[in-house]
Amino acid sequence: MVPRTPAPEPIPPADGSPAALAWSADNCSIGRTLDVLRDRWSFLVLREVFNGVRRFDDMRVRTHIPRAVLSDRLATLVEQGMLRRVPYQEPGRRTRHEYRLTQKGLDLYPVLAAMLEWGDRYLADPDGPALDLIHRDCGAPLHLEVHCDAGHVIGDPREILTRPGAGARGRTA
Amino acid sequence: MVPRTPAPEPIPPADGSPAALAWSADNCSIGRTLDVLRDRWSFLVLREVFNGVRRFDDMRVRTHIPRAVLSDRLATLVEQGMLRRVPYQEPGRRTRHEYRLTQKGLDLYPVLAAMLEWGDRYLADPDGPALDLIHRDCGAPLHLEVHCDAGHVIGDPREILTRPGAGARGRTA
Repeated sequence: MVPRTPAPEPIPPADGSPAALAWSADNCSIGRTLDVLRDRWSFLVLREVFNGVRRFDDMRVRTHIPRAVLSDRLATLVEQGMLRRVPYQEPGRRTRHEYRLTQKGLDLYPVLAAMLEWGDRYLADPDGPALDLIHRDCGAPLHLEVHCDAGHVIGDPREILTRPGAGARGRTA
Repeated sequence: MVPRTPAPEPIPPADGSPAALAWSADNCSIGRTLDVLRDRWSFLVLREVFNGVRRFDDMRVRTHIPRAVLSDRLATLVEQGMLRRVPYQEPGRRTRHEYRLTQKGLDLYPVLAAMLEWGDRYLADPDGPALDLIHRDCGAPLHLEVHCDAGHVIGDPREILTRPGAGARGRTA
């Protein structure tokens, strides 16, 4: 078994500068998530599939994404395992494919739900949001909560601290 | 008082096609949130400020965002009210500005926390995540939960339905 190379010593931040500067952001999971999702088009495609819109032409109608861009983002989302292609055939037409969420894709739900919640608060029209998320079983609207593993509900982002995780790497250049 | 123009009748979806097709996505809050945030750079800038990295040069060091792009995204985030500029001065140097989150910016925390959680699950290195979010008061790690207003915890996105909200507009073209 090859011993793991010890992490390089992080550059200590200068007095008064933020502690985060000692650490690399290169392997941050937020950055990696954005590397995969790339831009707003991918989010909009995922939104459509979550809404039950699974076919290329239907997605075009709702999102106005240019054809080439939509093809490219769908291909990436399939390649990265967030969507899978399922064949379908309408009478007298050739076989085509629709797109369904994998578990990996379904697990992006909180990202979209968080964007929806923020947008509803700050950017919705005076008559209200265009879309409601509701609980299938009871019909009540949904909201996101940040909890800690000790069971506290975090109502204010100022109650949150960041610290280097198990995979943190020192920033060295 | 001018009476509100009644919403146009939505185009009924063809048999078997998704119900969402009857509705316009043009005023969807997810789309509007993405219009404001635009691309991955804005998310990375917000991540840095949440991490306590508030100054232009420090952000550059951690994110490798090109200068012009960083300037532009910071200006947009200020203009849109997510960040505010606060002057500071180091001895012998001219006054510069650092960036702090407004309440509107702080309220984007769940979006970033959701991306982090998803990235940690699917994209982290074998030795673990680069960054932990913890509760300031008790030190326990954080996680997101989807709840309904009737008090149920939604463990599976399949338990979620979408429906047109109070501001839904029919799709007419």
